[in-house]
Amino acid sequence: MCRWIAYRGETIPLEQYVTAPAHSLVVQSLRALESTASTNGDGFGMGWYGEHPEPGLYREVRPAWSDENLRYLCRHIHSHLYFAHVRASTGTPITRPNCHPFACGHWLFMHNGVIGNWPRLRRQVEQLIPDEFYGARIGTTDSEAVFLAILGAGCEKDPISATGRILATLTDMVSRDGLKESLRFTAALSNGRDLFAFRYAANDNANTLYYRKSGQNVVIVSEPLDTERAHWTAVPPGHMVVARSGEAVRLEPFEVAQRVAAK
Amino acid sequence: MCRWIAYRGETIPLEQYVTAPAHSLVVQSLRALESTASTNGDGFGMGWYGEHPEPGLYREVRPAWSDENLRYLCRHIHSHLYFAHVRASTGTPITRPNCHPFACGHWLFMHNGVIGNWPRLRRQVEQLIPDEFYGARIGTTDSEAVFLAILGAGCEKDPISATGRILATLTDMVSRDGLKESLRFTAALSNGRDLFAFRYAANDNANTLYYRKSGQNVVIVSEPLDTERAHWTAVPPGHMVVARSGEAVRLEPFEVAQRVAAK
Amino acid sequence: MCRWIAYRGETIPLEQYVTAPAHSLVVQSLRALESTASTNGDGFGMGWYGEHPEPGLYREVRPAWSDENLRYLCRHIHSHLYFAHVRASTGTPITRPNCHPFACGHWLFMHNGVIGNWPRLRRQVEQLIPDEFYGARIGTTDSEAVFLAILGAGCEKDPISATGRILATLTDMVSRDGLKESLRFTAALSNGRDLFAFRYAANDNANTLYYRKSGQNVVIVSEPLDTERAHWTAVPPGHMVVARSGEAVRLEPFEVAQRVAAK
Amino acid sequence: MCRWIAYRGETIPLEQYVTAPAHSLVVQSLRALESTASTNGDGFGMGWYGEHPEPGLYREVRPAWSDENLRYLCRHIHSHLYFAHVRASTGTPITRPNCHPFACGHWLFMHNGVIGNWPRLRRQVEQLIPDEFYGARIGTTDSEAVFLAILGAGCEKDPISATGRILATLTDMVSRDGLKESLRFTAALSNGRDLFAFRYAANDNANTLYYRKSGQNVVIVSEPLDTERAHWTAVPPGHMVVARSGEAVRLEPFEVAQRVAAK
Repeated sequence: MCRWIAYRGETIPLEQYVTAPAHSLVVQSLRALESTASTNGDGFGMGWYGEHPEPGLYREVRPAWSDENLRYLCRHIHSHLYFAHVRASTGTPITRPNCHPFACGHWLFMHNGVIGNWPRLRRQVEQLIPDEFYGARIGTTDSEAVFLAILGAGCEKDPISATGRILATLTDMVSRDGLKESLRFTAALSNGRDLFAFRYAANDNANTLYYRKSGQNVVIVSEPLDTERAHWTAVPPGHMVVARSGEAVRLEPFEVAQRVAAK
Repeated sequence: MCRWIAYRGETIPLEQYVTAPAHSLVVQSLRALESTASTNGDGFGMGWYGEHPEPGLYREVRPAWSDENLRYLCRHIHSHLYFAHVRASTGTPITRPNCHPFACGHWLFMHNGVIGNWPRLRRQVEQLIPDEFYGARIGTTDSEAVFLAILGAGCEKDPISATGRILATLTDMVSRDGLKESLRFTAALSNGRDLFAFRYAANDNANTLYYRKSGQNVVIVSEPLDTERAHWTAVPPGHMVVARSGEAVRLEPFEVAQRVAAK
Repeated sequence: MCRWIAYRGETIPLEQYVTAPAHSLVVQSLRALESTASTNGDGFGMGWYGEHPEPGLYREVRPAWSDENLRYLCRHIHSHLYFAHVRASTGTPITRPNCHPFACGHWLFMHNGVIGNWPRLRRQVEQLIPDEFYGARIGTTDSEAVFLAILGAGCEKDPISATGRILATLTDMVSRDGLKESLRFTAALSNGRDLFAFRYAANDNANTLYYRKSGQNVVIVSEPLDTERAHWTAVPPGHMVVARSGEAVRLEPFEVAQRVAAK
Repeated sequence: MCRWIAYRGETIPLEQYVTAPAHSLVVQSLRALESTASTNGDGFGMGWYGEHPEPGLYREVRPAWSDENLRYLCRHIHSHLYFAHVRASTGTPITRPNCHPFACGHWLFMHNGVIGNWPRLRRQVEQLIPDEFYGARIGTTDSEAVFLAILGAGCEKDPISATGRILATLTDMVSRDGLKESLRFTAALSNGRDLFAFRYAANDNANTLYYRKSGQNVVIVSEPLDTERAHWTAVPPGHMVVARSGEAVRLEPFEVAQRVAAK
C-alpha cells in the first residue's frame, strides 16, 4: 500500500508538503501509520505543473527518505498543482516506469490500491487501453494500465465519467466468474487545471483518503501530514474530491455502481 | 544494437570472456566495432547455470564498464554455460527487467536486434504469448516478448522449431499490410544443457554473429573478443549454431521461410 | 543501526542465512526487532570467500528486500565463509562504497555501530590509516576508516591485537577533551580462514551480538534469525567470538582497556 | 575527461543548453569531440540558482543520455545561472557525491581535469581543506577536495585570488620532489551572482574551454554546442572568463604563477 499527496492552490515550493511537515510524505515513506505496509521504500515520484504545457516528472527507484536530489528539487520547484507518491510495491518490479505518478500528455495520475489477482486479470485490463494510448504503456503496473484505460475512455471530455466507467468495468472483472478479487482505488487525476481524487473499493475496504482546504487551496492525502487530525476531513468510501479550476473544492459521491447498471 | 557472448564448455570463471580479453564484452560496452551503436551503455546482464535448477541472473541499469559488482562476480562465479549482454536500447526504458538475458524456468534468452515499429506491432507480438507465460512478462521489450512467445510455442520439446515458428510469424507481421518493417534477430537460447544461437533478418541485414570452438567448448559472440579474426567463424545470415549437450558444435541453416510456407 | 550476519563452516549457498530463514537478514532489512532503526533500507552488501584469492563483493544502494539480483546471487554463490549486511545510515551518503562489507586484499570487514560526532573526529580517525592503506579508502564512512586503521595496525600478524589497539585509540578520542561521544563497535573481520566478531562500546551500550554453533559451523548475527531464541548465545559487551581455521569456536573477552593502559 | 557548460544571463529553462542544441551536453555525454574520453557516461549533474538562497542540485550515477528525469527537469527548471556536467571518471567511484557540480553554502563548482597521481597526493590536498569545510567533503574526488580548499582559502571575499592561491599550491605539489605530475584545471565557480571559469594546466596541456556572449548573457563550455565554431571564442590556457553580476563579460589572464612567486 502506498502513500501520496496532491496539492492545488497558490504556487508554492513542493517542499511545503513533501518534505517539511512533521508527518510529511517523506517521513511516511519510512513509517506510515494508516497503512498495511509500514514502509514505503519501493521507489517514489513527483509530478508537477509549471509553464511547460506538459507536467514535470521525477521518479526514482531508491527510497524517498534517502534521496538527496528530492530535497533539492522540493526546495526549488514551485507549482500550483502537484502530486507526490511513495511506493510499496504489490508485486510488480521496482523500476522508474512503475513508480507513480504517471504522465501522458497533460494528464497526471497516481494511485494507492490494487487490482487483485493482477497476473490473471492483467491481460483483460490491458485490453481496455485503446491503441492510441498503448504506446504510452512503458511500465507493467496495474495502476498505469488503469490510468491509460481512463484516458482512452473519454477522460479529456469528462474525467469523472471516464473514471467511473473504467472502475465499473473493473468491478465487473473482479467479481465475474465466481471471482471475488479485491479492487481498491484511491487515486488522483489532473489535467493541470482540475484536480480529482477518488476513494473507491469493491470486495474490500477502500484505502483511506483525507483532505484539508483553505480558500481555493486544497491538499489531499492518504493520511494526515500532521498530528492535528481535526484539521483533516476524511473522504468516505465511494466519494471523490473535485477541485475544478476556479471553483470551490467539493466532496461528492463517486458513482461507479450506477454506471455498471447503466451498461 | 547490443553486444553479447554465450559460452558452453568446461566450467570456467565468467571473467574469462566477460572482462578479461582485449576486446572483452565490457570493453565492447564502451566501444564496439561492428555495431551501429558504438556505445552499449544502457544496462547489461549476465545469466549462468550452476547447481541450482534455475539459472542465476545479474542485471543492472548502469553501464557494464563502471560496475564494480560485475568484476567481483565475474571472478567468483564459475559456470559451464553462461550468457552476458551489454545493451543499447532501441527505445524501451532502461530498467533491470528490460536488460538481457531473460530467464524463465530453466531457460535463458538474449537478443541483439529489433522488431521494427514496435509501438505498432507490440500488441500483436504480445498476443503470441500464451497465458501460461504472460505472468513472466515483467518488462516491456520486444526481446522479452519474443522469448516468451518462443517458450509458448513448444520450446521445451523442440526449441529450434519453436523459434522458427515464432520468427516465421514475426516475418509475416513485419511484411503484412504493405509494411516492410525491419526484423533483426541475432539471439541465444539455452535450457542449461543445450545452447542455440540464431542469426536471422527480414527486410534488413542480419546483425553479425561469430563463434569459435575447441573440442566441446564453444564461444558465440556478436563480434570477436580479440583482434585475431582468423580464429573466429562468421555465422552466415539464416544460420544457427547448435551446441547440444554431449554433441559436437554444428553450424546449420535456420529454416524460417519453410515453416511459414508450411503454415 | 545496521544488521548483519557472518558465517563460517561447511560450504553452503548464501541463501541459507541471507534470504531463507523466517527472520532472515532480508526480512530484517524491512523490519528489525532489536534495533533503534526498524528499517535497514540504506543499501546492503555481501562479501564471500571462494576459489579466488580475494573475496567477492556485491554492494548495492537499493534496499535488500526488493533486489532481484540478491535472490539470484544467494542461490548460486556457495561459500564456507561469508558476510552479509543491511544498512541504516548514520549520516554518510548512500553509495556503494559506503555499504558494508569492505574488502581490502584478502580481508573483509563489516560493522554495526557508530563513532559519535564523526564530522569532528573524522580527520583524526583518518590519520590512523597509514599511507599504504589510504588509497583503499574509496568511501567516506567511519566504518571503512576504522577497518583501514585496523589493517594498518598490524592486522595481518595479529588481528585481535590490531583491533584492540585501534579501539583503544578510538575510546581515547571519544573521551578526550571533555568529550563523551558514543563509540559503538559490533563488527566482523576475516581473512578468509579465520573469523572474528567483536562487541564493544564506550560511553554507550554495545549493539547486540549473538551466535550459534554446531561443530565447526558458526553463524554470528546482530539479532537471531528465527524465533527460537534458546538456540542463540548472546555475546556479552566487551567480548568477541573467535573462529580460527581448524579450531573450535570460542567466546573470549575482547580486551581494549588494558591495551590503552599498556600504551 | 568530462564535459560541462555554465550559463549566466536572462532566466531560461535549462533545456536551452543542456538538452536542446545539436551538440548539446547530453549529446556530448554519448559522443564528445574534443575529449580523450569520447564517452562521458560515468554519471552527470546539474546545479542552478533560483529563489532559494542555496542552489539546487541534481546528480545521478546513470549516463545523462538515458535519464528520463533529466529531460523533465530541464524543461521545467528555469534559472539565470546554472551548471551542467557529464562525467568520465579518472578513477574515483561512480557515486552521486562524486558527480559534479559540487555545492556548499551558496557556492557551486564543477571541474574538467585531474590531479595526477591522486592516490599519492590526495592526503596533501585534503590537508588544504580547513576543518570548517571538511564536514562538507561527502565524496572522494580530487575535484571536490580542490573546491573545498578554494572555499577555505578566502573564496567568499575574493574568489579569483583564492582559486589562484590553491592552484599555485597544487602546481607546487605536482612538481615537487622530482615529480612532474599532470595538473589540469578547467573549472567553473559561482556564488549565484558572479560566474568564473578557469583554464589552467601545469606539466600538461590545458583542457579546452570556449565561451559565447550576447549582451550580458554568456555560455561557457568545454566544447562548442553546435557546429558553427565561428560563434565561439576559445579561452587560451592560463586565462579565465569573468562574468560578475551587472558587469560585462571579460576574458582575463588567470595568474597562478605570480602567486606562487609571491608566496
